[in-house]
Amino acid sequence: MPECIFCMIIRGKRPCTKVYENDDMMAFMDNKPITNGHVLLIPKKHTELLTEMDDRLAGEMLIVAKKVGLAIKKSKLNCRGINYILADGAEAGQDIFHVHMHIIPRYRGDGFGLRMPQREDEETSEERLERIAVKIRKGAGIHI
Amino acid sequence: MPECIFCMIIRGKRPCTKVYENDDMMAFMDNKPITNGHVLLIPKKHTELLTEMDDRLAGEMLIVAKKVGLAIKKSKLNCRGINYILADGAEAGQDIFHVHMHIIPRYRGDGFGLRMPQREDEETSEERLERIAVKIRKGAGIHI
Repeated sequence: MPECIFCMIIRGKRPCTKVYENDDMMAFMDNKPITNGHVLLIPKKHTELLTEMDDRLAGEMLIVAKKVGLAIKKSKLNCRGINYILADGAEAGQDIFHVHMHIIPRYRGDGFGLRMPQREDEETSEERLERIAVKIRKGAGIHI
Repeated sequence: MPECIFCMIIRGKRPCTKVYENDDMMAFMDNKPITNGHVLLIPKKHTELLTEMDDRLAGEMLIVAKKVGLAIKKSKLNCRGINYILADGAEAGQDIFHVHMHIIPRYRGDGFGLRMPQREDEETSEERLERIAVKIRKGAGIHI
């Protein structure tokens, strides 16, 4: 099985354009940027999914994402907003199975956005939301 | 100026279908769900942007998001992946100016996805990425 491409970047076996690094995380330019300044943030420890990360590293990930976001906003890129997007699982659009967060600066008329499904109004009924919430709370063994 | 709708939910002045709550965070069903099981996660402390949150709360946010994601995966919703999306700023699609993360379960053929802009190949050149990275690193006063 070929080595994970992000692990290769972390080990310096593949080049990247680094933006930030600490003991646990690395941030570098996406080489297929969605917009100018599109950064990828990854944990150095190979983990496939966010839900498999330990709490400390998961927390560190958004702290570093915030730091990179601040850097982007203070830079001369002059973006007007930022999207932070994480895809867990192939069905969510994950392509490389090493947790990564996209940090995507936004510009007026940049053409990026969310493609929304058509939904029925019925979905928004309180009864239906409660039925779904019950399933999720049961999933976590949470009782509210 | 009208009170923030999320602050009203936190104070119990508006109803919500709660999924999880701790001292700092609250997660509840989005009443305009993009897909079945779409959850919104917010900090209880009113903060407009992720980049304005203190590190502790920013970290806590992804830890709780992970917890909710695990609950969704263990539930009987039978999703096949999860997207975690945060929009910072109106230009990034932020509609309510109280930090919130969308936790969106994904299903085969659910119709949700990212709308990608058309990009020039030129954007991916290493020289161009390095020029942009220099701006971002300068923005943070980071020297690598």
